[in-house]
Amino acid sequence: MGINEFIEVRKDFIVPSRISIISKVRGLRPKEFKYGKVVRKTPLSECPFCPGNEFKTPPATLVVKLVNGEVLYLKDSDTERVRDWKVRIFPNKFPALTTLGTSLNYGYHEVIVETPEHIDLPYVKDLNQYVLVFKAIVKRFTNVLKDPKINHVILIKNYGPLSGASLEHPHMQFFATSFPLPYVVEEITYSTKYYKDYGRCPYCELISKDLNSSRFIYGNEGFIILSARAPRSPYEVWVLPKRHERSFINITDEEIRYLVDALQKILKAYEKCLGNPSFNLWLHTSPKKLSNGDDYVYHWHIEISPILTTWGGFEKGSGTYIIPVSPEEAGEYLKKCVRELI
Amino acid sequence: MGINEFIEVRKDFIVPSRISIISKVRGLRPKEFKYGKVVRKTPLSECPFCPGNEFKTPPATLVVKLVNGEVLYLKDSDTERVRDWKVRIFPNKFPALTTLGTSLNYGYHEVIVETPEHIDLPYVKDLNQYVLVFKAIVKRFTNVLKDPKINHVILIKNYGPLSGASLEHPHMQFFATSFPLPYVVEEITYSTKYYKDYGRCPYCELISKDLNSSRFIYGNEGFIILSARAPRSPYEVWVLPKRHERSFINITDEEIRYLVDALQKILKAYEKCLGNPSFNLWLHTSPKKLSNGDDYVYHWHIEISPILTTWGGFEKGSGTYIIPVSPEEAGEYLKKCVRELI
Repeated sequence: MGINEFIEVRKDFIVPSRISIISKVRGLRPKEFKYGKVVRKTPLSECPFCPGNEFKTPPATLVVKLVNGEVLYLKDSDTERVRDWKVRIFPNKFPALTTLGTSLNYGYHEVIVETPEHIDLPYVKDLNQYVLVFKAIVKRFTNVLKDPKINHVILIKNYGPLSGASLEHPHMQFFATSFPLPYVVEEITYSTKYYKDYGRCPYCELISKDLNSSRFIYGNEGFIILSARAPRSPYEVWVLPKRHERSFINITDEEIRYLVDALQKILKAYEKCLGNPSFNLWLHTSPKKLSNGDDYVYHWHIEISPILTTWGGFEKGSGTYIIPVSPEEAGEYLKKCVRELI
Repeated sequence: MGINEFIEVRKDFIVPSRISIISKVRGLRPKEFKYGKVVRKTPLSECPFCPGNEFKTPPATLVVKLVNGEVLYLKDSDTERVRDWKVRIFPNKFPALTTLGTSLNYGYHEVIVETPEHIDLPYVKDLNQYVLVFKAIVKRFTNVLKDPKINHVILIKNYGPLSGASLEHPHMQFFATSFPLPYVVEEITYSTKYYKDYGRCPYCELISKDLNSSRFIYGNEGFIILSARAPRSPYEVWVLPKRHERSFINITDEEIRYLVDALQKILKAYEKCLGNPSFNLWLHTSPKKLSNGDDYVYHWHIEISPILTTWGGFEKGSGTYIIPVSPEEAGEYLKKCVRELI
């Protein structure tokens, strides 16, 4: 086999201007990638996300509490904090957007504490806990999107020391903006074009095409997980809802359970088979409107990108990503891993 | 002053779909950013870029040697290596592209060793040495671009442990591709549109507009250095040739001296006033043709992005960058620093 077979340039299926170079020349195996070791930065007693320290953060905009098996959705006041919560959502202390803003900088930047437990795991073992988390997110998103000044919302999770996370207590963040976010706009532009050209949503097409490929990792009744065709990092995966739907907030309670099942599978696989790497996760959902106001095609989804290599000047300066493992090998490895974990 | 004044969303002047959020909420000062300490990974005797170890790399495609004050441009053979060189350019041992390729993966991926000295500095103190480096790069680029299968070339430098660099001996890399690189295509698309709308190159417009702003850092007869208006990292700068020119390979010998002067000024300022941070540098020059084949407007330039914060899920997933220092403050700080260093 010559060097030619070890190097392949490919374009993303959705946004063809996103290019990956699959170069297996270095021949790295899964365990040879780098990982930042998780180091506890704050003493547990000072963790602002732990129960008892609620006054270290701004008042929560949404608190989930279980009382006699019933789910209550509450709010903090300025002077009081809800105790014995299961999930807590509050404004980021160092916001990138503010509801005191008047123009482009208007927005929400909030933190979602996923569990009262200060544990170093990208997921909680309890499926029901994560269902509470996602139900709370849907509730908060629905509310925030009612604000006429808000157009778009993105959910993200940074896990581990290389991810940009500054606190280890399991949490996510969301950003609600007055403008549609660039990468989602790009995806919508191309999805709409694809629909015009082929009469079908390209994400739906991807789901049916990749279902029988080596990039297929896992599927349940609601979601499938694919190894990204043109990843920006090795072992990047996409979690796609089977039902064609533009907006995440229209997810059903039943679908939330399937989503949580899928996320737990892949995050567990990352932990067990990739050595618990740092990762970034983002959820792409539709803005309320695009600037041109046209009708458009979109399919909400989640992308998860483990941090196993460093982007250098080539990646940052060209928009082209060198990936030392093929997405097909990555898919097969993770599929095998998920199966062994079940 | 309310929080509103601390947060500003702005769009890049050239590519409006690149968005930065300037959030000074954290109030970080220059010395409070993080830096990866440079750690020597290889014993000096094993450094493949040091004189004496030429056989550890593939044969050089271009070697610069000085003999009695005369500059010679030579090549290695398979069995012999040129000794006593000043600059050495050779194929990357772990290439992302290959001339053995047949389609999209066809290309050159080469390393430029900037000096025989194994020193930990982003520049050599000797202006003449860097002039030799850039003359060699122009020569090699000119040659590579004669290859009919090559369309585009990008020069990059990764400096420091957070940059993706795996060897510390001063070096750059270039990638020559059969396809035009995405970010340059984006810049060309918008530059051409701007030209159609306003009758002027937007980079030329930027040079004249920002010359009297607090984003202006340094200028000489050939180049100006600006603090980027909508940076992707704090203290990102753009080095722009004053002469409107699409292709870097048309740089004159006189301009090379001014380019080196400008680069040395800003890299010295990074070292002295930002604590010697890791950085990525890339040179954007025109491809030979765009896919649509139309005529277009472009202005080659260099962007330098120090690594002082970590991109998280928001940056990677939205294409929007949170920057904790305003480009105007960054410009004033670096301008003051450059002036004190002169």
